[in-house]
Parts: sequence; structure tokens; C-alpha cells
Amino acid sequence: MKNLEHIRHSLAHLLAAAVRELYPGAKNAIGPAIEHGFYQDFELSAPISEHDLSAIEEKMRELIKAWDGFARREVTPEQARKEFAWNPYKLELIEEFTEGNAPITFYTSGDFVDLCRGGHVEHISEINPDAFKLDRIAGAYWRGDEKNPMLTRIYGLAFASKEELETHLALMEEAKKRDHRALGKELGLFVFSEAVGKGLPLWTEKGAALRRVLERFIVDEEIRRGYKHVITPDIANLGLYKKSGHYPYYKDSMYAPIVIDDEEYMLRPMTCPHHFELYLSQPRSYRDLPMRIAEVAKLYRYEHSGELTGLIRLRAFSLADAHIVCADKDQAKREVAGALDLIEHMAGLFGLNMGDNYWYRLSLGDRHNSEKYFKNDAAWDEAETMLREVLHERKCHFVEAPGEAAFYGPKIDVQMRNFSGKEDTAFTVQYDFCMPGRFNLAYIDADGAKKEPVVVHRSSIGAIERIIAFLIEHYAGAFPFWLAPVQVAVLPVSEKFQEYAESVFKKLGEHNIRAELDASKETLGKKIRAAELQKIPYLLVVGEREQASRTVAVRERGTGDRGAQTLDEFLALCNNAKN
Amino acid sequence: MKNLEHIRHSLAHLLAAAVRELYPGAKNAIGPAIEHGFYQDFELSAPISEHDLSAIEEKMRELIKAWDGFARREVTPEQARKEFAWNPYKLELIEEFTEGNAPITFYTSGDFVDLCRGGHVEHISEINPDAFKLDRIAGAYWRGDEKNPMLTRIYGLAFASKEELETHLALMEEAKKRDHRALGKELGLFVFSEAVGKGLPLWTEKGAALRRVLERFIVDEEIRRGYKHVITPDIANLGLYKKSGHYPYYKDSMYAPIVIDDEEYMLRPMTCPHHFELYLSQPRSYRDLPMRIAEVAKLYRYEHSGELTGLIRLRAFSLADAHIVCADKDQAKREVAGALDLIEHMAGLFGLNMGDNYWYRLSLGDRHNSEKYFKNDAAWDEAETMLREVLHERKCHFVEAPGEAAFYGPKIDVQMRNFSGKEDTAFTVQYDFCMPGRFNLAYIDADGAKKEPVVVHRSSIGAIERIIAFLIEHYAGAFPFWLAPVQVAVLPVSEKFQEYAESVFKKLGEHNIRAELDASKETLGKKIRAAELQKIPYLLVVGEREQASRTVAVRERGTGDRGAQTLDEFLALCNNAKN
Repeated sequence: MKNLEHIRHSLAHLLAAAVRELYPGAKNAIGPAIEHGFYQDFELSAPISEHDLSAIEEKMRELIKAWDGFARREVTPEQARKEFAWNPYKLELIEEFTEGNAPITFYTSGDFVDLCRGGHVEHISEINPDAFKLDRIAGAYWRGDEKNPMLTRIYGLAFASKEELETHLALMEEAKKRDHRALGKELGLFVFSEAVGKGLPLWTEKGAALRRVLERFIVDEEIRRGYKHVITPDIANLGLYKKSGHYPYYKDSMYAPIVIDDEEYMLRPMTCPHHFELYLSQPRSYRDLPMRIAEVAKLYRYEHSGELTGLIRLRAFSLADAHIVCADKDQAKREVAGALDLIEHMAGLFGLNMGDNYWYRLSLGDRHNSEKYFKNDAAWDEAETMLREVLHERKCHFVEAPGEAAFYGPKIDVQMRNFSGKEDTAFTVQYDFCMPGRFNLAYIDADGAKKEPVVVHRSSIGAIERIIAFLIEHYAGAFPFWLAPVQVAVLPVSEKFQEYAESVFKKLGEHNIRAELDASKETLGKKIRAAELQKIPYLLVVGEREQASRTVAVRERGTGDRGAQTLDEFLALCNNAKN
Repeated sequence: MKNLEHIRHSLAHLLAAAVRELYPGAKNAIGPAIEHGFYQDFELSAPISEHDLSAIEEKMRELIKAWDGFARREVTPEQARKEFAWNPYKLELIEEFTEGNAPITFYTSGDFVDLCRGGHVEHISEINPDAFKLDRIAGAYWRGDEKNPMLTRIYGLAFASKEELETHLALMEEAKKRDHRALGKELGLFVFSEAVGKGLPLWTEKGAALRRVLERFIVDEEIRRGYKHVITPDIANLGLYKKSGHYPYYKDSMYAPIVIDDEEYMLRPMTCPHHFELYLSQPRSYRDLPMRIAEVAKLYRYEHSGELTGLIRLRAFSLADAHIVCADKDQAKREVAGALDLIEHMAGLFGLNMGDNYWYRLSLGDRHNSEKYFKNDAAWDEAETMLREVLHERKCHFVEAPGEAAFYGPKIDVQMRNFSGKEDTAFTVQYDFCMPGRFNLAYIDADGAKKEPVVVHRSSIGAIERIIAFLIEHYAGAFPFWLAPVQVAVLPVSEKFQEYAESVFKKLGEHNIRAELDASKETLGKKIRAAELQKIPYLLVVGEREQASRTVAVRERGTGDRGAQTLDEFLALCNNAKN
């Protein structure tokens, strides 16, 4: 990819040259290659808009004809200062190079000279003029410091071939269409309210239906797998998090305390100590272990308003969390494997493929960083080896990530990438040899001795909000029947059939089908179009013929007309779609 | 009941006389008649315990033989001060009477003289010595002021007849057995943790199962009735509650704010403004109304630690809440009636009878108190008349309670009494003509005009925690099958049948039956006893015979042995019990 980087950086020069020609007095700052392309920062005397990009692009294609390469020339600081007397950004860089005794080099292409450290194509013919495109404009502080002036940053996309550029543009187009923020609005799943506050979504009837289906499904599945689902408070005394040892590691991501009767209460940032308090509420025996304490728990983590992103980063979210108290390491190893089984089962249900849609990352500690990690080298070694073994035994590919562990132990992260290419940890399985000691967790073994357990922290489908964001993008809003917020739309051909349509709608409700009745005065065509935009799996059209024969005309999303069916036939179809 | 009050107050004298004889130097303060009996406060030189009560009671029964009545004598302040020079409490009262120019009277029975304003039996024979009983001891500040000395208060029970006393004692015994705090612990439904904080219950697997069943049931039932279930954040910007007008009325019951990025966020004390923000997120038409926005919403209300009572008064609770936006008063009237229908339906499912277990209270405003109530006399008149009409049309008995309305309008409260006799508002239906204006709620009517709706606030089963407290006491922990946290216990006769028992247990789980398997080494008798104490509806005993015939021996709570059944037969039985 060396060549591609050179192409991209060379194009930043070309962009600077074009802008300097079109906007006399424009001062170019820096212009590096980045993923998918390049950018160049400018101080401009008047603001420009994205409408101006095509003219700039045109100028670039015109100038490139007269370029053949990048002629390097080393200059003295004096020469450099003289050449760039008009450009304070370059002058600042020249001073830095001078202080660092670094060579100062100019690169010239055509009439354009720039201060630069190199990294260009050898000959201009390496650049395919049809394989780049200016993309967008953003503001950027000089050197990323908000105390400095705000510059105009122009982004460009660049690839080796026109085909690659086009593939990328199509992908971006698709990502934009699938963006869960846009789709969430279009499908009416959730809204944000300035009055309520940033990072705090309000779920509409439809979005809440999606959440409810997902939450009930995971709770029931976990109970079937032997988890004990509990409900613990969303706030707790600050002392609890000090006792757990979370406080020093989490205090920057916790919200300010709430004072109640001279005590400080916190919005909880994690569930662990709450579950441990339940564990401690009565004596436990080896026969009780493994004890899988689970909860769909509301958590609060401090996020700067600039970091809030749709449903991916919120100020409050609900985690499908669990803490498995295990008698020993062997039991813990089996429980880690069991947690991965559940994760893969759920991923399979969502149509996600390992390696493709998600992959495992083994996140390790750092023996030299006792500020970030609980100090116990032998325990870290043992735990990391064990998690590595679990992954090897599953014969699955994984990456290792030093310094990404939790403070109390290593973990297996399930990584996902959204359609815009941003990678995030979706779920996680963690091994904890630290907190059982802090909480004096204990059990009585078969031999009557009091022993200390180990704990596996795990999430099955992660934060409900985040997995919904992934699923919206994964399905592009066209949810499978069992997840769809509205499963069936009943569309009377005209008001004449309203009563029959209502009886169909009512019967669907009695069978717990999430249905909607379009009672508007629109034409059938408009009703169908509106329901299709909502990506509803089944549309039932009812008119003269259907009313007379007590049937419904079924249209299936994706496949189209399935003809007339009795309501019982259609309910059977739904029942199959459910399973 | 005049006579009963006289009996009770007379017994307070007798108690004072007995204590003065048994504990020389004891100083009696006041001793009034109260509901079910009387009390008398004392300053004692050494603490006494409830073990001492029988000796005091014996002394009372001995002294009463020498009493015949209460001889009244009016005295001068000087005489009174001289007689009670030893008793600072009486001296304080004497000074008050003197200042108020009230007559000062002594009452003498046998050798015992007390400062008293009267209210005794005419002759001692009116007191049945078998119809009273000393009950318990508590600490009480002199005149209820914590700056004064703490006195010892002895409570007694007293009735006209021995039978009435015994009935009352049996009732108290039953209330104690049914107390949801004791039963909750016995049945392992919830615990409190000092480390987490007061008034914040942690629900165990069993308690959480009960909550889950109840919550899912009410959500599904409301959806069937046309409610739109949403999910909104538990915290919001303080500005939201100022905009809604709740803040001045609720600020004393709200927790301190959480500061996030220089903004103040509150744990929400109510759901209304959150639902209004959702309503406002898009334009609404008359065709959308009535819009029934519902949520099982977590709420936070400030309670002094002294007011926290089991699950009845908590610092956080979940309300089955809804806000019905109505086009006009007529629609609102129908919706109020619909909300009462739902309440009565749910109450019926819980086996609660109107008039007996619950009753309606019409809570009215106060036209002269514009500090407590939104000022609009005509609207109050109209709204109160409407709610009264709804109740009259249902032909149900109700009481009227002036000054118990919400600040934004009158309401119908559903009142319940727990087994200890404490009355509480369990659910409520409120009429709101105030907030639609504050929030600029609007809809476009059929004629194209923009109009202001009215809102009905209602709760179907109230706070989940509170209704569970009521239900625990109502059922004495023996929940009907559909609500029972554990529905079936599988009891292998010995370890030999463990494997078969596990296959039965597994099959029950697959059919979503909440089952428990007793894998302990206890005898069958002990296993049965343990499961019965947990009030589990069905016990399935599996031994030699059952394993051989692939059956289970079914024991039903309350009715006993139902003989051997195949698992399919038993599952059918469960299915019927469910409906």
C-alpha cells in the first residue's frame, strides 16, 4: 500500500496547488494521506462550500497535465523562511525543523512549490486522474488545538483505479442509507429531545417493540441456559464502588454523585457489585455453583457531548449483563465456553457470520502497568492462558490486543464493525480473579472448607441500544419477522372495507401479531408504498373480493404477491415465520 | 364507641398505677385512648423489656379489684404543683392549664391520683379484666419532639369483650404472618443491602420472576387495549420539569441534581413530561387521538429514611404509567371509564373485590388554594363533575376527598388497605387540563384547525413494587400458578432418580414452566416440607415407580395428592392453570 499512500499524499499537493490558483491568497497548512484518501488544510479569506469542490477538482485535473513528478531540493532555514514569508503555518513548521536540526526540503511540481518531508509518487503517471474525488469540507483547528485558528479542511478520496473508487463510493452510499441514525428516524424507532437531554433516546412505540422483543428473547434464552435473572437498583451508595475497587478506575466515566441525607449515591456505571451483594445475601455452597446471575441492567457512563453517536454511544444504556460465580478455574473455563456458545447462538439468529460480521479479540493486561491493572502476575498469566485455550479449542481465529483488558482480568471481546467502518466491542467475556477477594465472596466446598470463587463477567448481546444500532444497519431496517416492530400492515382498499379490515386487525392482535391498520383516506397504491417504506414484512390488502370470501390478499416483503389466504392460513404462515 | 374510648383511657390510668407500684420513682406522662387500645408514657430509671409486660398486666388485674370508679376533684394550681412536685411532665401540663385558664382536675381510683381532663368509665365494672392485654413497648419523645427526653411508651389493647380482643389478636397474628417484608424474606423474593443503600431493594431470581410475569402481563394487556408502550429515559434535564410546571410542586420530593457538562439532570419523579416530548416529536392529527402513551417507568421520589417501608415506600420504583392524549372532554370521559375498566379487570384477576379489598376515592381540588392547585375554577368544576359522573354511571360506591387532587386536576384514586390496616393509594386516574397548555400540545382537527387536547394520566396496577407488596399479603405468599415465582418443584425420592428428575425438570423448562429441582441429599419428607414452606403450587415426586412408568406423582398446594400423571398430562394441567 506504499504506492497508494504516495498517490494520496501527492494528490494533497495537487489540491493545494489548485486552491492556491483559484483562491489567490489561500494559505495551505498540512496535507497528509489518510485512510481512503487525503486532506489538505487551508486558511481562506472567504468561506467555501461543497458546491465549490467540483471546480477545484476540475482545476486539479487541469494542473496535473503539466506535472511530471516531485523535484526535491534541500534548502537552508533562511531560504525556507524567505520562500514562505507569506504563510505563518509553514513558518511555524520551518522553526520546528530548524530547532530539531531536521533537513528542510522543498518539493516542486509544475509551478507549485511546497515545504514537505516527502512521500510522493515517482512519476505523475502513477496517479489515475479518474481514481480520485473531492469528498467534503470540515473545519479543523491548526494542529488540532482549539486555541489556534480554525482552518478549512478539504477531504478527498483516492484509489489506484477508477473501479476501486466507484466501489468505495457505492459502499459509502450504502452506509449512508443504512446509518442507524437516519433509518431510526425514517422508521420512527426513536427520537432525541433537546429538552430531555443529549445522549438520552426516547423510544417510540415501534422502537420500544423492537427492544421488548429482543429483551424478552434474551432473558428467556438465558433462563433456559440456567441463568438466574435478577433486578437490582440503578443507583447505589458511592461506598459500594469504593469497596469493589471500581471507583479509581471508573471515576472519570461516572456522573457526579446525588446527595441523599448526607450520603452520596451514584448512577451505576456497572452491575458487578450489585450482583455480588445479592450473592452475599445468604451463605452459598459448592452445590449452588456455577451461579449465573444475570440482568438487563441500566448503566450510566460519562460521555462528552462530542462523543455521543446515535445509539452507539449514549449517556444511559441497558446491558445484557451477567456474573457467573464459579468454584474454580476449570468451572470458569467451561462457563467462558458456554458464554461464547450463547454469543454465537445469538449472532447466528441475527444472521451474523464469524470472521465476516464479527470476530474475537483476546484483550490482555500489562504486567508493567499496575496503575491500570490489578497486580498479580501469576494470576494474569494463568487467566490469559486459559482464555487463549478456550479460543484455541473452538478452533476460531482471533487477534490478541495487549493493554485492552479490564482492570480485574483479561477478556475475550466480540468485535463488530458498523457500515461506516467504525470498529466497536459489541459483547465481552471477562475473567475476574480480583473482585471475589475484595468482596469476600465465598462458598462452602464439599469438604466443608470455605473457599474463594472466581467470577466470569459476560454480556450476551451487549448493550441493547448498541446491538439495535448494529441490527438496524445489518438488516438495513428490514427486520426479520420475529424482530420487526410492525409485522403486518392491514390495508383496506377503501373506507367501505374498514369494518372488515378492523376485524382482521383485531384478530391479529389477539394472536399477538404486531399489526397496524392504515385507516387513512389515501389510495391503495399510496398505502402500499407507505407500508413498504416502513419495511413491514407482510401487507394484507382487503377489498371486495377478500371481504366476500373472508380472506386477505398477502404481499410479502421482498417476494411480492402471495395471493389470497384465509386468516387462519396467514396466521399459520406467521407462526412459521416466528420459529 | 364512647364507652370503649372511656374503657381504654381508664386502662391507661390503671397501667400508670401498676407501673408506679412495680417501679417506684417511675414518672407517668400522658396516657390516651387510641385505636384498638391505649398507651401510657413513662420516665423510668432503668429500661424495661416486653418480658416485663406480663408482670405489669398481673399487677393491673390485682389493683382493679380495689377500684370502683374515678373520683373527680378540681384543684388550684398551687395544690396541683404541690401534689406533682415529683413529676416534671405533669408540672409542665399544670403550667399550660394555668396559662390557658383551664380548670385543673385530679381523678382518684383506689390509692392512685392522676392529673387528667376526664373521659373515664362511670363504674369500674364496665371494664372486662379479660378484654385487655399489654401489647408492646416503644420509645417516644415527650410531646413528640426529638429535642425532649425519650420516654418509654407501653401500648395496650382493649375491647369491650374477651371475644373481640381474641379476634383482634388473631387478626394481628395473621397480619404478621402476611407482612410482605417477613414473607418476602422467607420466600426469598428480595433483599436490602446496607452497602447499596436504604429503600433500594435487590430482587432475587424468584422476586424478579414475579416482577417479570406481572410486568409482561400488564404490558401485553395494555397493548391489546390499544396502548402504545414506549421507553423513555430515567433522567432528564432539570429544565424539562420547570417547563412542565412540576418542579415547584415536586422539588421537595426530587433528589438533588446530577451535574453533567454544566447542566443539571434529575432522576425523574414522574413520566408526564417525557411522554409529552414524544408526543411533540411529530405533528399529530385528530385521527391519532386518543393516543395512549404507556410505559413501565422507573421513578425516583425523595423519602426520609424513617418513612421507608418494605416495598410500599421506596426511593426508586417502577410505575405502570400512561398518558392518554384526548381530543376533548367527551373522549377523555370515555378514556377515564376505559382506564377504570382495565383497573377492575386486573383487580379481578388478582381476586380483589371492590368495596372489600379496594374502593374508589374522588380526590378534589381546593378553589381557595392557588398555591397547591393550578388556578382555573371553571375547569376544576367541569373536570370534577365529569369524574363524578363517570363514577355514578358505573353505579359504584366512592368517597370524596377535598384537597387530595393533583396540582393539574382532580383524580379518582383506587384505595387499598394492607393487612396491618394502613390505607394507601394503589392506582390513580387523573384529569389534566393544565399541562397540555404548558407543553403546547396540539393536534389538527378534521376542520384543519389547530386545537389543544386534554390529558388523562393513569396507572393500571400502580407501582410494581407496591402492588407486589399488596399481592404478597393478599395471597399470604401462596401465589396463583400464573404468578408463582416457582411453579413446580421436582423432588427425586433419592439420588438414584436424579437423572430421571433432571429430564423432567428440563422438559418443564422447555415448556416455559418455572421449575426447581431439589438435588439435595435430604429425605423426601424434608424436601416436601421445604417446598411447601416455599408455597410452590405443584410438587412432582419421582421415585422407582414414576421412573419405571415415565410418570410424576403430583401434589397440589392446598388439595394434596393428585396421583401419578404422565408429563404430558401434567403439562396440560399447567396450561389450564395458566389461563
